[in-house]
Amino acid sequence: MRTEPIKVVIWGFGAMGSGMAKVLLNKSGVSIVGVCDCHEARRGREMHEILGVERGNRKPVIVEAKIEKVLTERSCDLCLIATHSFTEDAFPGITYALSKKVNVISTAEEMAYPKAKNPALAEQLDQLAKANGVSVLGTGINPGLMMDLLVVALTGCMTDVKHIEAKRVNSLSPFGKAVMEEQGVGLSEAAFQAGAENGSIAGHVGFEESIAMIAEALQMPIDQIETQKSPILTDVERRSPYGYAAAGHVAGVNMTGQGLHQGEVMIDMVHPQQIEPQLGGVHTGDYITLTGTPPVHMAITPEVDGGIGTIAMCVNMIPHVINARPGLKTMLDLPVPRAIIGDMRHYLEAEDDI
Amino acid sequence: MRTEPIKVVIWGFGAMGSGMAKVLLNKSGVSIVGVCDCHEARRGREMHEILGVERGNRKPVIVEAKIEKVLTERSCDLCLIATHSFTEDAFPGITYALSKKVNVISTAEEMAYPKAKNPALAEQLDQLAKANGVSVLGTGINPGLMMDLLVVALTGCMTDVKHIEAKRVNSLSPFGKAVMEEQGVGLSEAAFQAGAENGSIAGHVGFEESIAMIAEALQMPIDQIETQKSPILTDVERRSPYGYAAAGHVAGVNMTGQGLHQGEVMIDMVHPQQIEPQLGGVHTGDYITLTGTPPVHMAITPEVDGGIGTIAMCVNMIPHVINARPGLKTMLDLPVPRAIIGDMRHYLEAEDDI
Repeated sequence: MRTEPIKVVIWGFGAMGSGMAKVLLNKSGVSIVGVCDCHEARRGREMHEILGVERGNRKPVIVEAKIEKVLTERSCDLCLIATHSFTEDAFPGITYALSKKVNVISTAEEMAYPKAKNPALAEQLDQLAKANGVSVLGTGINPGLMMDLLVVALTGCMTDVKHIEAKRVNSLSPFGKAVMEEQGVGLSEAAFQAGAENGSIAGHVGFEESIAMIAEALQMPIDQIETQKSPILTDVERRSPYGYAAAGHVAGVNMTGQGLHQGEVMIDMVHPQQIEPQLGGVHTGDYITLTGTPPVHMAITPEVDGGIGTIAMCVNMIPHVINARPGLKTMLDLPVPRAIIGDMRHYLEAEDDI
Repeated sequence: MRTEPIKVVIWGFGAMGSGMAKVLLNKSGVSIVGVCDCHEARRGREMHEILGVERGNRKPVIVEAKIEKVLTERSCDLCLIATHSFTEDAFPGITYALSKKVNVISTAEEMAYPKAKNPALAEQLDQLAKANGVSVLGTGINPGLMMDLLVVALTGCMTDVKHIEAKRVNSLSPFGKAVMEEQGVGLSEAAFQAGAENGSIAGHVGFEESIAMIAEALQMPIDQIETQKSPILTDVERRSPYGYAAAGHVAGVNMTGQGLHQGEVMIDMVHPQQIEPQLGGVHTGDYITLTGTPPVHMAITPEVDGGIGTIAMCVNMIPHVINARPGLKTMLDLPVPRAIIGDMRHYLEAEDDI
C-alpha cells in the first residue's frame, strides 16, 4: 500500500464541499491539502475552524479565493469540484484541474452525463483528460445513483426490459432558503408558472442525463426526451425550517420526464419534491419498477437523503476515479460505488496493474 | 464496431446452460459456436432441436460430450461454464478454457468469490488468466447480485455503515426434483438433521462468498464467518409441481450467516427457501437494511426469480468480461451489470482503448 495519503483539494466550500470535508476528516488514508472558495464568509479562514472540528495534529488549511494558490501541477491526486450545476459553468474549473494533471470529481448534475446536453464540451473534457493522463467523473445521489445507476444495476438480472419507471418522492424540508426559492416553495400558482417560464424555478436538474445514461447502458433506442415541471399545490398550510406554503400555494415541484422510442415511452421519470410531504398524505421513497423478464419492483422507504447521499457518492468514488483509465468517465464505466470504511489507499491499484 | 459476432461456447446444457442459449439466440451481435454436455439425453443432438426453437439460417450446433471438440485455442471469445457449484469441481474446466486463451464466466456459486474458500485455487486462476491474456468471472443472481453486489452498491450513498442485513425470502416451488432433494423438502425433521450433518442437504451455497465480497468492498474488518441451516417445518400440507411436504414436515431450509468483527455481527444474512411460502403466511422478497449514515431500507417484492436472474447475469456480463484486464475478476471489479437490449458488440472496447 502507498505510504503517502491520497491528497484531495476541495473547490467550493458550500453545503456539499464542506460536507465532503467533514466526511474526509473521518476517513483513513486521505488528506485534504487545499480548499478554494471565493465566498467572503470563508476566504482566508482556516478549514477546521469553519467546520467546527478539532484540527488536532493536522496542518492548517487556509481557504483560498484563487485556485492557483491551492492547486498546481500534480499537487494533489484529485480535486472535488462542488461549484455549479451545469456543465458549461463547471467547465473552466474542470479544465484547469485536468490541465494540471489532477483527477476531478464534479457535483454538477449535468456532468453526470455531459454528452446529453453538451456533447462538444464532453469531447473536449475527454481529450484533455487523456492528454494529461487523468480522469473526470460527475456524480451525486441523483443523477448518479437513485434514478440511473441503480436502475441500470437492477436490470442486470433481466433478460429483456420493456419499460422502466424510476420515481423519487422526497422531502424538501431539510433544505435551506436557496432551494426553497429554486423550487418555488410558497409561491402562488401563477407566480410559479411565471418562474418556470423565465427559468428562475429550476426544479430538478438531471432527467436528460439519467435517461441518456440508462439508454446507453442498455443500448435502448431512445430517440426523444421530454421533461415537465408542475407545481405541487397544498390543501393545508405547511411549514418547514426554511419554507412556508399557505393553503392553496406551492409546496414544491413535480418533475416528470420521459425517454421515448418512436413516440412510445420506454423510460418514465417521476420526481415530486415538496416540503412536509406527510401533510399531503405522501410517503417519501425511491421506487424502481422494471417491466420485462423477470419484472422487478424495488422500494427504498424513506428516500435516501439527498445531501448526505451526494456527499457520500463523491467521497466514495475518489479511489475509483484515480484508478480509472484516463478520460471522461460516467458511473457506467467505473466499478460500483461502495462505502469506504477502511483505509482509502487499499483501493488504489498498484501502478504495474494499470 | 466489430463486424464478426461475439463467439460463445456453452459448457453444461442443463437448466442454466440451455436457458442462457435461449436468451443468447434472441440477442444481436453474439453467436453460440459450440455446446459441450456429456449427458446422454443431449450429447450428439442439435442445439436448436433440444431447445425447441427454429434454427432458421443459423448453422447447426451439435452438442459434443468432449470439450476438445468445441473449444480450441482462441476458437471463441468466451465460454459460459454451468456445470458445478464448487470451485474445486469447476476448476479443471475453467483452467482448460483459460489455457486456450478464452474468457470464462462460471455459474459456480463459490466462483463468485473463490478467495473465500479456495485462496490457492483463486491465485492459480488469476495467474493462468493473466498468462493467457483473458479473464474469468463467477456470477449469478445470488451470490452475484441480490445479497452482495446490490448491498455494496447501495452503501455507495453512505458515509458510514454500522450494520448490514441482507434477506432473501424465496419460493422453491418453480424448481425441480434435484433442488427438492438438495433442500430436504418433504423430509421429517430428524431426516433433515441427518442430511444436514452428512452434507446431503446442501442448502444455499454462497454466504461465505457474499460476506467476503462485501467485506472487501467496504474494507470492513470481518474476522469470522458463521453459517447455520435449519428446517422450515410446515403447519399445513404444501404441494408444488415437484415438491410435497406433509403437515409437520420440512417445506424448505432457513439459511442464516453472519460476518463478525471481534464477536460482533456486522453482516447478517437471512435466506429462507421453501415451497409454497404463502401457505406459511410468508411474503417473498429481497430485503436490504443498512444501518449507518444515512440508513437505507430496500425491498424488492416479490423476490427476483433465481433461475432467470442467474441466466441474465451471466449473459449480461459477457462483454464486460471480454473487456476486462486479464485475471480473476469479481463483480466488484467490473462495471455494473445491465440488461443488454441492443447489439452486444456495442459494449466491446476498441483494442486501442484497452
